[in-house]
Amino acid sequence: MAGVGERGGDDGMTHMDFEALVALLERVFVAHGVSRANAAILARNCAGAERDGAASHGLFRMAGYVATLRSGWVDGAAVPVVEDAGASFLRVDAANGFAQPALAAAAPLAMERARETGACVIAIRRSHHFGALWPDVEPFAEAGLVALAMVDSMAVVVPEGAQRPVYGTNPLAFAAPRGDGKIVVFDQAVSVMAHGDVQIAAREGRALPPGVGVDAAGVATTDPHAVLNGGALLAFGGHKGASIAMMIEIMAAALTGGLFSHEVDWSAHPGAQTPCTGECVILIDPARGGSGAGFAARVEQLVEALGEAGQARMPGDRRFAARERAMREGVPVSSEMLAGLEGN
Amino acid sequence: MAGVGERGGDDGMTHMDFEALVALLERVFVAHGVSRANAAILARNCAGAERDGAASHGLFRMAGYVATLRSGWVDGAAVPVVEDAGASFLRVDAANGFAQPALAAAAPLAMERARETGACVIAIRRSHHFGALWPDVEPFAEAGLVALAMVDSMAVVVPEGAQRPVYGTNPLAFAAPRGDGKIVVFDQAVSVMAHGDVQIAAREGRALPPGVGVDAAGVATTDPHAVLNGGALLAFGGHKGASIAMMIEIMAAALTGGLFSHEVDWSAHPGAQTPCTGECVILIDPARGGSGAGFAARVEQLVEALGEAGQARMPGDRRFAARERAMREGVPVSSEMLAGLEGN
Repeated sequence: MAGVGERGGDDGMTHMDFEALVALLERVFVAHGVSRANAAILARNCAGAERDGAASHGLFRMAGYVATLRSGWVDGAAVPVVEDAGASFLRVDAANGFAQPALAAAAPLAMERARETGACVIAIRRSHHFGALWPDVEPFAEAGLVALAMVDSMAVVVPEGAQRPVYGTNPLAFAAPRGDGKIVVFDQAVSVMAHGDVQIAAREGRALPPGVGVDAAGVATTDPHAVLNGGALLAFGGHKGASIAMMIEIMAAALTGGLFSHEVDWSAHPGAQTPCTGECVILIDPARGGSGAGFAARVEQLVEALGEAGQARMPGDRRFAARERAMREGVPVSSEMLAGLEGN
Repeated sequence: MAGVGERGGDDGMTHMDFEALVALLERVFVAHGVSRANAAILARNCAGAERDGAASHGLFRMAGYVATLRSGWVDGAAVPVVEDAGASFLRVDAANGFAQPALAAAAPLAMERARETGACVIAIRRSHHFGALWPDVEPFAEAGLVALAMVDSMAVVVPEGAQRPVYGTNPLAFAAPRGDGKIVVFDQAVSVMAHGDVQIAAREGRALPPGVGVDAAGVATTDPHAVLNGGALLAFGGHKGASIAMMIEIMAAALTGGLFSHEVDWSAHPGAQTPCTGECVILIDPARGGSGAGFAARVEQLVEALGEAGQARMPGDRRFAARERAMREGVPVSSEMLAGLEGN
């Protein structure tokens, strides 16, 4: 396996072996008080986003993870508690830890239950979600299940007709098997643009496209700093996107027992960046449905119809391509980022 | 109670007692081969949409129901078969009948299962859905459950980057209790505008707002006739709305065993207007979640926060207001529509 820095290029980019990058991030997490078990999960999640070309949820997030851990706002060593609330309902107390270890703790039993009964809800509360959402649903689809995940975050999206943000960027992710080990997957924020992408635009001094956000006075702006400093993001598709944001608040917070996005208050923890809210995952066993074992083949037929109609790419295709390339050639990491991580 | 025609006004509108309107529609359905049991369900559904001020899914639809029944494309006397596919999964064969009687046949057992296990999926196939979707979820929320419903329809929405329609208008409806017998509910097509509203615009000679649809050549148009004759609708919010359309095809067709929107072929049945596809309803018992019996109160807190942020109206509020008024004063029906229905 290629080691750290082995493939440094002329462009200041190092192509890191994926497992070496995971190991490096694990060391950073552990150095800041995360338990080994939780660090392994978070490191793979974050390195995976970078590998998949999703810069806004990759290594860019590490500084936020570290600042939040330092602030005492999140418990990196939290041990999630899975509660059996029904044959098709698992409740998980993330104990003020990260959402991904909480989901990992519930996943094996949840999959068993979905296969036994046809469906299973995983309702996670008191959880910090700072990663991409597709890693939360992909493994279920790879195991033959349909998965739908929703997370609320922090109040940055203005409801339809309102003057102040109430909703989070509230991502919705969906995954389903399509046969031959392949899956269909999407992961999308209800905001026109993901919050992380606005942060990246601010950092890089780029203007936002029109229609993305408003400033503190509620006036449309293309300045990412104005959106981040007292302004707010807009929901995609106007009131229809806002309805989905509302549904996600209800599913990820009211149902789970977590906080709504607008209730998150980290003012006593300067540096904190990870919202402590909730996550809801719904698993369904498609073999129970009317297509039975033919479900994946039916999904594949839909994918084919989309291709025939001229859709060049399925959601997730760009990530899958980046993943394949990175697993072959290494994950491109800037020397500056690498130095920062190694200095942590 | 006010009878038919009792409150005819100067504007050519008759204010009909709701139950009298239901009875009138029942007679129309039965006259065209619908069984009494199915007619009772469809009449209440259609009259309910008119009562709620949703013209596109109310009496306007009766001509389409009648034409479809006459064409032999749908079986108005179909007897749905509920199959117990797991402790939390009911499969329903609508037997080429309407979706609403199929849902009604499964609802009592599905609610029992959701209360027993925490969740229940209802997967309906071979079903014609020509009504609004909120009546499919409202009763579950009124009974204390969270409900999510999805229906695929007929290929009228262009996927992101494609040249031809593949998706249906694929409505998504969601409802949850918010305490005091009140509920939160939304019902929205993935198209920027509902197909029925485009038909109404065409009938009334009104132009569409920009961004709603394209003509047969894929060029943006505001002419409803161009959209209806070989053109197509656009998904709300670009690729994000299109992702939701895809999810709904997978849930309502691949999962249920029904047809995808693009597979509906009624060419052998001139006059047919109701797509024969599938419907998926997910029920969740919120009492199993982390808020327990406090769920509805938490939803109410969210509604209050939205109001405080300046959102004047919740989704569904306009319908609830119209409903209350119509139950008090009667459902306004034009004399022309009334004459047409009575002549059926």
